[in-house]
Amino acid sequence: MTGPRHSIVLAERPSGTPTPACFRLETQPLPTPASGEVLARVIWLSLDPYMRGRMDDAKSYASPVALDAVMEGGAVAEVMTSADDRFAPGDIVTGQFGWTTHGVLPANALRRLDPALAPIQTALGVLGMPGLTAWVGLNDILRMQSGETLVVSAATGAVGSLAGQLARARGLNVIGVAGGADKCAYATDKLGYDACLDHRDSDAAALGARLRDAAPNGIDGYFENVGGKTLSAVLPNMNVNARIALCGMIAWYSGRNLDQALPLPQVWRRILTHRLRVEGFIIFDHFQRFPAFLADVGPMVRDGQISYRETVAEGLENAPAAFLKLLDGGNFGKQLVRIGPDPAP
Amino acid sequence: MTGPRHSIVLAERPSGTPTPACFRLETQPLPTPASGEVLARVIWLSLDPYMRGRMDDAKSYASPVALDAVMEGGAVAEVMTSADDRFAPGDIVTGQFGWTTHGVLPANALRRLDPALAPIQTALGVLGMPGLTAWVGLNDILRMQSGETLVVSAATGAVGSLAGQLARARGLNVIGVAGGADKCAYATDKLGYDACLDHRDSDAAALGARLRDAAPNGIDGYFENVGGKTLSAVLPNMNVNARIALCGMIAWYSGRNLDQALPLPQVWRRILTHRLRVEGFIIFDHFQRFPAFLADVGPMVRDGQISYRETVAEGLENAPAAFLKLLDGGNFGKQLVRIGPDPAP
Repeated sequence: MTGPRHSIVLAERPSGTPTPACFRLETQPLPTPASGEVLARVIWLSLDPYMRGRMDDAKSYASPVALDAVMEGGAVAEVMTSADDRFAPGDIVTGQFGWTTHGVLPANALRRLDPALAPIQTALGVLGMPGLTAWVGLNDILRMQSGETLVVSAATGAVGSLAGQLARARGLNVIGVAGGADKCAYATDKLGYDACLDHRDSDAAALGARLRDAAPNGIDGYFENVGGKTLSAVLPNMNVNARIALCGMIAWYSGRNLDQALPLPQVWRRILTHRLRVEGFIIFDHFQRFPAFLADVGPMVRDGQISYRETVAEGLENAPAAFLKLLDGGNFGKQLVRIGPDPAP
Repeated sequence: MTGPRHSIVLAERPSGTPTPACFRLETQPLPTPASGEVLARVIWLSLDPYMRGRMDDAKSYASPVALDAVMEGGAVAEVMTSADDRFAPGDIVTGQFGWTTHGVLPANALRRLDPALAPIQTALGVLGMPGLTAWVGLNDILRMQSGETLVVSAATGAVGSLAGQLARARGLNVIGVAGGADKCAYATDKLGYDACLDHRDSDAAALGARLRDAAPNGIDGYFENVGGKTLSAVLPNMNVNARIALCGMIAWYSGRNLDQALPLPQVWRRILTHRLRVEGFIIFDHFQRFPAFLADVGPMVRDGQISYRETVAEGLENAPAAFLKLLDGGNFGKQLVRIGPDPAP
């Protein structure tokens, strides 16, 4: 528990698709918390598509990770030493510790978890940032109405799987798009999607035709996580006054699949003639909604009404490979890295 | 006053840019109003970019004009014969009479004008559909806030010129984009724009650099009438939480200038990272806002606080040429066609 600190740092910026050479494992002595700070050992690290953007040296909604700095990321950790009254050793907390085994953060950047409520790693998934993203997208951006049809891309991912289930719970028609027959079977059998289409089977035109069959009344809301050919298939099926919540575009990260994009004039024409609303959102702008989200979704998770699935990589040293696989859709549900053992009961 | 009726019909659908061969002048006997209808002679015909869309046989927000049917269009007319209690001969009305010298419409599809309030043709411009479009775009779609910067394309057009003036009247920073030095001079000298850029001078990159100079704090709202290179110049200068009111895309009508479009992934990335809202709107959805619009803007027009400019073509037979010129930006302000003489005073 007092051993050295291991971290993954950004060794070089990717040109296009990231490679293992972008990351480097480093070892340092344990940091010491100053007044108001907390030292904790990480138990679970979250891997998320947004991290790809942080690896570039481009202006985005957040600063890039500096070269040779620890990769950013959310984590669940156990407090080892606290220099703040609000936390004590043994407390389980969540915060942005990064890709590391140990970290120091200000106490006011941490949130305490109740291990009795749900498994602690759900604070990185269904009850954390991805869950809040799904809930805000559905409620505040898409503002879905009873009887409407929603399409969710990356339908079984950490965000999509909750968006789909919440939408089904309020009686919407919900169609998923995912990569692989196993994910699609999971979407309909476990998550309750009315239908799920495997985009790996089809080009954009064929996928669009299958969407038309699955949504004979057209599409009113699109939870956009991917861009690429899924967007090309969805757009021509959107109804008057439909909305797109633009949450991610993983198919286009690293400059891939750019040939799958519709021409902008065609997209602009659809937005105009069908009075569409396309709205980008970043969950960091919406943390004030966390209490309302937790009050709504927390009990559903506790009571087993919400399914969630995790892909777990073992050990910090395997985080880079797990992240590269995530960017390629190789995970299934929430991608986690097990960094350290569970706390003693 | 009782002579035959002349009309312009759609002779053939355009392939790309419309030509004079798309139109044909026809002569028929005067129609007779049935009970509840009104026969009127047209004084002013409005020409608007949206009419280009009606010439195609494609699903759009309204049905296409049928082949050999009279071209659609708003008009100001004088009642000749009324079979409805609400109107009497000599009344000045506005309604969708089309490209014609005389027409019959149901009384409930007409609005009576007060010639003492403003010149009657303003019912087709600053106090009509284009004016309502500007007002709704600014208030209901863009929801501009004090201190923000607005860019208006087609800045001196029927819609843009009112959008710019209303925005200036409430103290926004307003930058116009227009085609030609004369239009830009009019925009700053008469309409009160803080700056106006002539897009004919520049490619998208140069126009973008000039926009950056003109809007050093970035762009918060974009009143989009054109698409094309103006959009390519505006988008990279948009601030976090900026909005685009998508009202038209005249640069891309008839399949022109498609090479001036940004790649969709680049647009999608900007919408995501800057949390933009892009919203299409069609004024026909917003007629319930007409009374509020007229109460707000009517007095400003009556008191001379609003400038408006007209380009007038003389005679129905010149409507097609005037329309083709409008699509190419050859008009200046509201494009009208004088169909018949003013009413006797």
